[in-house]
Amino acid sequence: MSGLAFFAGTHVMAQDVDKLTEGAVAETYEGFMATPAADFFTISNLWILIAAGLVFIMHLGFSTVETGLTQSKNTVNILFKNVFIVCMGVLVYALWGFNAMYPGDFNGFFAAGSPIANAFADADVFANMTSEYADYTYWADFIFQAMFAATAATIVSGAVAERVKLSSFMIYATILVCFIYPITGSWEWGGGWLNNFGGGEKEFIDFAGSSLVHAFGGYAALAAVLLLGARKGKYVGGKIKPILGHSMPLATIGVFMLFFGWFGFNGGSVLSADPQAVSLVFVTTTLAGCAGGLGGMFTSWALLKKPDLSMGLNGILAGLVGITAGADTIAPWSAVLVGLIAGIIVVFSVLFFDKLKIDDPVGAISVHGICGNFGTIAVGIWGGGFFLSQLIGTVAVSAFAFICSFIIFGIVKAIMGVRVSEEEEFGGLDVGEHGQEAYPDFAGATKG
Amino acid sequence: MSGLAFFAGTHVMAQDVDKLTEGAVAETYEGFMATPAADFFTISNLWILIAAGLVFIMHLGFSTVETGLTQSKNTVNILFKNVFIVCMGVLVYALWGFNAMYPGDFNGFFAAGSPIANAFADADVFANMTSEYADYTYWADFIFQAMFAATAATIVSGAVAERVKLSSFMIYATILVCFIYPITGSWEWGGGWLNNFGGGEKEFIDFAGSSLVHAFGGYAALAAVLLLGARKGKYVGGKIKPILGHSMPLATIGVFMLFFGWFGFNGGSVLSADPQAVSLVFVTTTLAGCAGGLGGMFTSWALLKKPDLSMGLNGILAGLVGITAGADTIAPWSAVLVGLIAGIIVVFSVLFFDKLKIDDPVGAISVHGICGNFGTIAVGIWGGGFFLSQLIGTVAVSAFAFICSFIIFGIVKAIMGVRVSEEEEFGGLDVGEHGQEAYPDFAGATKG
Amino acid sequence: MSGLAFFAGTHVMAQDVDKLTEGAVAETYEGFMATPAADFFTISNLWILIAAGLVFIMHLGFSTVETGLTQSKNTVNILFKNVFIVCMGVLVYALWGFNAMYPGDFNGFFAAGSPIANAFADADVFANMTSEYADYTYWADFIFQAMFAATAATIVSGAVAERVKLSSFMIYATILVCFIYPITGSWEWGGGWLNNFGGGEKEFIDFAGSSLVHAFGGYAALAAVLLLGARKGKYVGGKIKPILGHSMPLATIGVFMLFFGWFGFNGGSVLSADPQAVSLVFVTTTLAGCAGGLGGMFTSWALLKKPDLSMGLNGILAGLVGITAGADTIAPWSAVLVGLIAGIIVVFSVLFFDKLKIDDPVGAISVHGICGNFGTIAVGIWGGGFFLSQLIGTVAVSAFAFICSFIIFGIVKAIMGVRVSEEEEFGGLDVGEHGQEAYPDFAGATKG
Repeated sequence: MSGLAFFAGTHVMAQDVDKLTEGAVAETYEGFMATPAADFFTISNLWILIAAGLVFIMHLGFSTVETGLTQSKNTVNILFKNVFIVCMGVLVYALWGFNAMYPGDFNGFFAAGSPIANAFADADVFANMTSEYADYTYWADFIFQAMFAATAATIVSGAVAERVKLSSFMIYATILVCFIYPITGSWEWGGGWLNNFGGGEKEFIDFAGSSLVHAFGGYAALAAVLLLGARKGKYVGGKIKPILGHSMPLATIGVFMLFFGWFGFNGGSVLSADPQAVSLVFVTTTLAGCAGGLGGMFTSWALLKKPDLSMGLNGILAGLVGITAGADTIAPWSAVLVGLIAGIIVVFSVLFFDKLKIDDPVGAISVHGICGNFGTIAVGIWGGGFFLSQLIGTVAVSAFAFICSFIIFGIVKAIMGVRVSEEEEFGGLDVGEHGQEAYPDFAGATKG
Repeated sequence: MSGLAFFAGTHVMAQDVDKLTEGAVAETYEGFMATPAADFFTISNLWILIAAGLVFIMHLGFSTVETGLTQSKNTVNILFKNVFIVCMGVLVYALWGFNAMYPGDFNGFFAAGSPIANAFADADVFANMTSEYADYTYWADFIFQAMFAATAATIVSGAVAERVKLSSFMIYATILVCFIYPITGSWEWGGGWLNNFGGGEKEFIDFAGSSLVHAFGGYAALAAVLLLGARKGKYVGGKIKPILGHSMPLATIGVFMLFFGWFGFNGGSVLSADPQAVSLVFVTTTLAGCAGGLGGMFTSWALLKKPDLSMGLNGILAGLVGITAGADTIAPWSAVLVGLIAGIIVVFSVLFFDKLKIDDPVGAISVHGICGNFGTIAVGIWGGGFFLSQLIGTVAVSAFAFICSFIIFGIVKAIMGVRVSEEEEFGGLDVGEHGQEAYPDFAGATKG
Repeated sequence: MSGLAFFAGTHVMAQDVDKLTEGAVAETYEGFMATPAADFFTISNLWILIAAGLVFIMHLGFSTVETGLTQSKNTVNILFKNVFIVCMGVLVYALWGFNAMYPGDFNGFFAAGSPIANAFADADVFANMTSEYADYTYWADFIFQAMFAATAATIVSGAVAERVKLSSFMIYATILVCFIYPITGSWEWGGGWLNNFGGGEKEFIDFAGSSLVHAFGGYAALAAVLLLGARKGKYVGGKIKPILGHSMPLATIGVFMLFFGWFGFNGGSVLSADPQAVSLVFVTTTLAGCAGGLGGMFTSWALLKKPDLSMGLNGILAGLVGITAGADTIAPWSAVLVGLIAGIIVVFSVLFFDKLKIDDPVGAISVHGICGNFGTIAVGIWGGGFFLSQLIGTVAVSAFAFICSFIIFGIVKAIMGVRVSEEEEFGGLDVGEHGQEAYPDFAGATKG
């Protein structure tokens, strides 16, 4: 068929240069819109935009999960960080990241960024649309990717919660999102070395970002936590003293919102409205998330003798992270298996990091880092990918995220410190950093 | 028109076998995607998927409504149950329910289930898509229906809250969703006896499930509550002592989310993106929900002398449940009337069940059961359906749900008990069942 | 191209009569649905409906923002008002407003309303659809506009919170939404005098309602607050005593939900699924909201020495309000500038109104009124509009809203009073007006 491609095949690689088309038959936007290809283009473009909106609402999910699982005295601080991250993330992605991540021809390892175009006349958009993009406009592409960009920093935010210095974190997060996230992104989705692994024959596969987004965030978080240290009172006299969160309804709202947003995260990564591909992705994503929830619930029930809600919630997220790399290529019942395993892994992983005295208040390293690794490798087992390519890819992305995070956070630490004073930590970051409480007038508080 | 049907007519029956098409002209998926029919198919399929996402978020709505309207000491328990129900519901529907509810040719009363297909190669999907489904893929059909399946158990969850034993409820809910819900579903949407009532001439009409989903859940809840008994302290010395909830913001968030999700519940039940049908369904759904809200507000104001928020919220849900059976066939101003009546009914119904000492903490029996009956019958008055068929259908579904629920919950009660100890009920199910509080560190609590 | 218009051009005016098409080639709905134009129509119609759903969820956003930023003793009251406003707003818009706002040929200043049609047969819908509407059905048009209508009253609700008498506000809000909002709406979107300014050559431009919705609500709120007076204890002895809200998580959830809904508010105002226009609107809306957030954060940080979360949140809303008038015509980097300026303005504006002892608990006058003015004027600077037309238009709408609000609220005040007693204000409107507390059983309250 002439013009834009109608159907992208079953092995659609998300956000992948492989499926870019060569150009359209029409000479102008209006001309193109009069061709029969315009309808599929319009549907697909609309879906990418709706998916971008769904990924946006995941930031509400992250905010409430992190808030719910931490103490109420640090609530304003966590909310502020998350709101900042979204705002900053989108803007630096526009300023530098998008063009650094999708540079066109490049050396495969690193490309310089630049601001997105400001012109939006028909010809400009059309030129971009038809020569380099498949089933959606330049702007839809940008906004969908921009919503992803801030996620990495948000993952770190949860892990360093309740003791990180606000200004230090803001600087660190800005550098991470602006300069580092697009590099590993370009390796795969920008057509870099991982995308061309083994001459393209044994390419690395990461559909919607088990590695590029989640493991990236998880390992960046691990480095930051190692430099930051545990919260005071968490590990005392060789014992683990749980520091409980303050609102399980907030945490649950957050997980439901993340699940809801994941339909856009994975579903939009098909990069078209192709009925078969998007439908399958919805099914595998849902099945894996649900199986992960049951995995987390029953594993924690068996281990801890009580059915633990937060482990159920983390299990859902683990299942979703786990299926993200292969949501388009893993069959439904295999997706159940992937989700279930991820839901089991996350419980053991949370307990394991706690044993190592690596203090991660919300379990971000386990959910996103470890299950991101697992999900990527799962494509090499159940999703038709090459096992070794998957392993190398996820290790490369994780290691690069860890090292860069360690260096940046280390430099920030050396220059301005990364941790609040013990006094502020005890009194809460809300008052210490913001002079503002989360629940200043909560009359319900006077009742029993 | 050749190929897949473009337009399904004004009397589209949701999820109804009547509108299945005979087969497509193309021989392969790629071939079909190159036909002009592919665009409408793609739009419709995308809409079904988005609608599935919207129905998913209704589970957040149910969770927060139930949590908000109950005591804070039972919050983790309610959240856990709801999270479990979603995860379990989708998986058992994949394992058994979907094929039991849509069995193809069967005796009209009962069919055995089986796991959904695991293959997803082009040919498999295409074969399903063109011979048995209209404007969406096999996978979109499954995921949309799967999101509905768990709802019945969620409705019961609210009614039995604050005193039901967790493990017993989990077993009961699993059996109900896996084996019972698909049976009544098959009677109508699977092409069974209700769908062919009077030789198909006087068929029962239930567009999106006033009976098949809501009344089913409401009457299952009634049976469970009768076996379970009231909460301690609710009816003392012949008097009704209200047990208040703990967060009206949570309850309100829940109702807004349910309303939002209902656009997918009803709108997706058109089973295509047909502009006229989907638009009308959005209008009737919204008008009925809004009229129900006003009905509940003003009825409670008149009866109780104070404008009651929870009655306004229940009124909205009542209006939405009420219009669900005829959202595609009831004219807009009739939809206002249906919603208004439902909003009035729910207030009287809640007071009535309380008089009977049938303790339903969230009003689920009234909202879903009674208003589900009313909405189904309303199709026989304002929606072009046959009154008697509507009456028989809603009674049959309600009675079957009640009886099955009574038997299953009764057996579970006989074997392992269904109620927590008095001590645990007093101390709260959060600590008793989960060893976890919902608000363990709520510093706002120290302030006035 | 024959039939319905495919592409609406780059300077699409939202909700503007200019882009109505002349009629379709087909004679019936089914005939039309068989034409190639049907697909674009179907996509666009679906998008308008989804956008209506997104605008609906903004009411959840408003509810939680207002609730979070006010005291817990007034929570039920605020939630009740917001739930009432949505329900009432949709119904009076159906009863009168829609036809008053889109009257067809009229004098350009005022038209009488009438109920929406009740018939929904193919021919009726088709007649409306093809002669007066472009890329969506009569019903989709109605429901999208209906969701906007209630917003004006919701904006007022926040400004008068914590001391307004419930019944008085309900009467006032009903008159405002039913009779006043459609008048200014008709001036522009209904094809009235502003739309034909300068013979149409220098027409006023308000894409999605910076003036028609937001400034309208903001100035109506200003009038109401002037008549109502400040909350007791806010301004004592010439000093400003902050009255803090009770839940920053609720406020943050609200802003995320409003941002999410704005994709429908602005994106749906394209009134088709045109890929280029909708994509650009998503980009400018997001960039402006994010820039507004940073503007609010850093301005408050500089002024108040502490990074203030509520100013960050108000900054986001300010940026979104600011871009709303020109989301389709302002280039992306200009959108960043518009958002940033709005985010700065809102901080100064909030402080300014507080200096004037105009007590606006949630900053609604600044966010919607002042930034609505700014956003409208911004189209005359960065969006290709005529500066003077923009200035006249936003002043006219604001002044009309202020005057009408002043008269209506003044009459209500004279007849039945608009303010609760000092005793009730101190004890809280929840108990005083509703006999109901928001957190009656909040066990977390007993803990430290």
